[in-house]
Amino acid sequence: MATQGQVITCKAAVAYEPNKPLVIEDVQVAPPQAGEVRIKILYTALCHTDAYTWSGKDPEGLFPCILGHEAAGIVESVGEGVTEVQPGDHVIPCYQAECRECKFCKSGKTNLCGKVRSATGVGVMMNDRKSRFSVNGKPIYHFMGTSTFSQYTVVHDVSVAKIDPNAPLEKVCLLGCGVPTGLGAVWNTAKVEPGSNVAIFGLGTVGLAVAEGAKTAGASRIIGIDIDSKKYETAKKFGVNEFVNPKDHNKPIQEVIVELTDGGVDYSFECIGNVSVMRAALECCHKGWGTSVIVGVAASGQEISTRPFQLVTGRVWKGTAFGGFKSRTQVPWLVEKYMKNVRKQTFKRFLI
Amino acid sequence: MATQGQVITCKAAVAYEPNKPLVIEDVQVAPPQAGEVRIKILYTALCHTDAYTWSGKDPEGLFPCILGHEAAGIVESVGEGVTEVQPGDHVIPCYQAECRECKFCKSGKTNLCGKVRSATGVGVMMNDRKSRFSVNGKPIYHFMGTSTFSQYTVVHDVSVAKIDPNAPLEKVCLLGCGVPTGLGAVWNTAKVEPGSNVAIFGLGTVGLAVAEGAKTAGASRIIGIDIDSKKYETAKKFGVNEFVNPKDHNKPIQEVIVELTDGGVDYSFECIGNVSVMRAALECCHKGWGTSVIVGVAASGQEISTRPFQLVTGRVWKGTAFGGFKSRTQVPWLVEKYMKNVRKQTFKRFLI
Ligand SMILES: NC(=O)c1ccc[n+]([C@@H]2O[C@H](COP(=O)([O-])OP(=O)(O)OC[C@H]3O[C@@H](n4cnc5c(N)ncnc54)[C@H](O)[C@@H]3O)[C@@H](O)[C@H]2O)c1
Ligand SMILES: NC(=O)c1ccc[n+]([C@@H]2O[C@H](COP(=O)([O-])OP(=O)(O)OC[C@H]3O[C@@H](n4cnc5c(N)ncnc54)[C@H](O)[C@@H]3O)[C@@H](O)[C@H]2O)c1
Ligand SMILES: [Zn+2]
Ligand SMILES: [Zn+2]
Ligand SMILES: [Zn+2]
Ligand SMILES: [Zn+2]
Repeated sequence: MATQGQVITCKAAVAYEPNKPLVIEDVQVAPPQAGEVRIKILYTALCHTDAYTWSGKDPEGLFPCILGHEAAGIVESVGEGVTEVQPGDHVIPCYQAECRECKFCKSGKTNLCGKVRSATGVGVMMNDRKSRFSVNGKPIYHFMGTSTFSQYTVVHDVSVAKIDPNAPLEKVCLLGCGVPTGLGAVWNTAKVEPGSNVAIFGLGTVGLAVAEGAKTAGASRIIGIDIDSKKYETAKKFGVNEFVNPKDHNKPIQEVIVELTDGGVDYSFECIGNVSVMRAALECCHKGWGTSVIVGVAASGQEISTRPFQLVTGRVWKGTAFGGFKSRTQVPWLVEKYMKNVRKQTFKRFLI
Repeated sequence: MATQGQVITCKAAVAYEPNKPLVIEDVQVAPPQAGEVRIKILYTALCHTDAYTWSGKDPEGLFPCILGHEAAGIVESVGEGVTEVQPGDHVIPCYQAECRECKFCKSGKTNLCGKVRSATGVGVMMNDRKSRFSVNGKPIYHFMGTSTFSQYTVVHDVSVAKIDPNAPLEKVCLLGCGVPTGLGAVWNTAKVEPGSNVAIFGLGTVGLAVAEGAKTAGASRIIGIDIDSKKYETAKKFGVNEFVNPKDHNKPIQEVIVELTDGGVDYSFECIGNVSVMRAALECCHKGWGTSVIVGVAASGQEISTRPFQLVTGRVWKGTAFGGFKSRTQVPWLVEKYMKNVRKQTFKRFLI
């Protein structure tokens, strides 16, 4: 390609300061160095975490930066030593890397990867600990190792999932964060079994994906809890079959759920990021076995608490990051799953 | 037997008031009613929980009562409908019942049993919701459904484990609480695998049993943590191969352990009952997979807390009651295990 090895000048939404409107302007994107991939971003979505860092509440947020981490695009060029993708490949950038070599990747127990964290955590690339973005020579920080609010971005090769080139990028870009997080919270972290009762706190993207995951896993009661009753209509399509608005009750929501389910649910998921809801989610679990998974990300410095008796009597408290999915290995599999469903739907329509 | 169907007058240690010396005196023990078993207690040990209730700090503690829950004895008589034990059987009374019929017992997910809790929780028997103990006609409450600080006690049949009559009762009485709790925390709750790193906070009976369980499970590093350095000598015999006294360090103990283990332990156990140690035990676990089990029982009203990020990044917080062992089914198995070891030791001695 003509751009290969060249600095690309393209549009990006730059966050110069917390809580100030993003500025869409020309940025320079340096070519990928060893182990790096430059991607032409075609679609990007917006997630809570972008808004959180943008708000200035994230103490690790660095400015100026280019936000964005839920996207899809096409590889423009690759740096030295990159073997698993090449220009033209359709890809999803993954904020959760997967190097397959580090202690974490080899543990077989987690999807967290330690390979590039020391760089992505501070907005730079591993190779030279510098940014590939600049505006008039001044560096702009990367964000979550993805920075997808730019027409071109540079990411580490361990953060690139190569996907089926037939997949519609405007759809599968959602497999970069919220949807896998919700599905994986159910399938990988909680391991919900058929017939289970499930409570989902917060019916945003993540909560809806949890509902879909729970439905697929065969859960029988899927109770959605949201302070916005309008969410129930949409949530029904994703599997939620009961709804509770905490505002309609004047006792703690955990008590409401425990009564409703004769002792508590088998699994609960907090998909809001509110520490007092995290407590409620744990405490509405059934004694003896109920498992609560924290998916929401709380504001910095906030703490969860409960009586230890809740755990001594058999409840389990867990959390999940990217739903426990190994990004490079499993995002392509999720895309495949999606494509199979699309084919099935099309075939059904064809029959009618 | 001559005593069958009769009230038995025998010695018991009665706790008339919190924090006042137990009074050893004559108590009347009524015959067992339907579904009840009267046991001649031959050996009883003392556990933290007895002392806790005795101290008056347990808001559910009822006085006057007969404490004690770690014991062994022989069935004296049985009430109507009792089929699984008969007079003369050697037994261990179990504060954790196992009815094999309730929602909990049938779940396959927990050792907690709901059958007699509503009675044992308030110091009486299910049948008539009254006590079988009295002194001069005044009722004395039961404790934990066991009340073993008495020469004779009456318990529910679902709380009696029938054991090998050859087992030395002065030894196996310890299988009524502390030892199974520690072993089971490792085997049933945490499921420690060979090669794991383990941290044990508190090297009392429970902590030592955790160490023994971890050693049997093949853990490689077993780090004991206690504010009393003298505990290390004994702990070595139970498998502890490293020791840390928090008093020798001026940073939080979780940081000490994380450094010592290059990122944290695979499993940690809190065997003290101190909520700030519970937090330390969670936070010294390895990111991605570390699991912390709360075994200690905290004082009423106290709470545990941590940043939710600890869980979102893969740590798991659990607890255990009686080590997850099903009492009637598994206490006899633990006795069998002990007996096999004794036989092995005797055989070895015979060979020398
Ligand atoms: N762990 C991970 O890997 C991961 C990944 C993606 C997102 N997240 C986090 O998941 C959370 C949810 O993300 P989202 O995009 O679905 O958010 P969202 O804002 O779309 O949805 C949140 C929902 O919660 C509801 N809500 C708010 N307060 C409530 C309360 N007190 N009780 C009941 N409902 C309440 C809102 O009405 C809304 O419907 C965020 O905290 C986000 O940062 C975590
Ligand atoms: N979950 C259950 O089913 C169950 C069953 C039995 C006992 N328990 C509980 O387990 C706990 C331990 O019982 P035990 O009989 O072994 O107690 P114990 O008193 O014999 O042992 C406690 C140990 O902790 C040490 N310790 C105290 N404070 C410490 C600190 N801040 N840091 C490090 N070490 C400290 C002490 O020096 C002692 O060695 C108690 O809380 C008891 O109630 C729970
Ligand atoms: Zn996100
Ligand atoms: Zn890795
Ligand atoms: Zn005990
Ligand atoms: Zn039961």
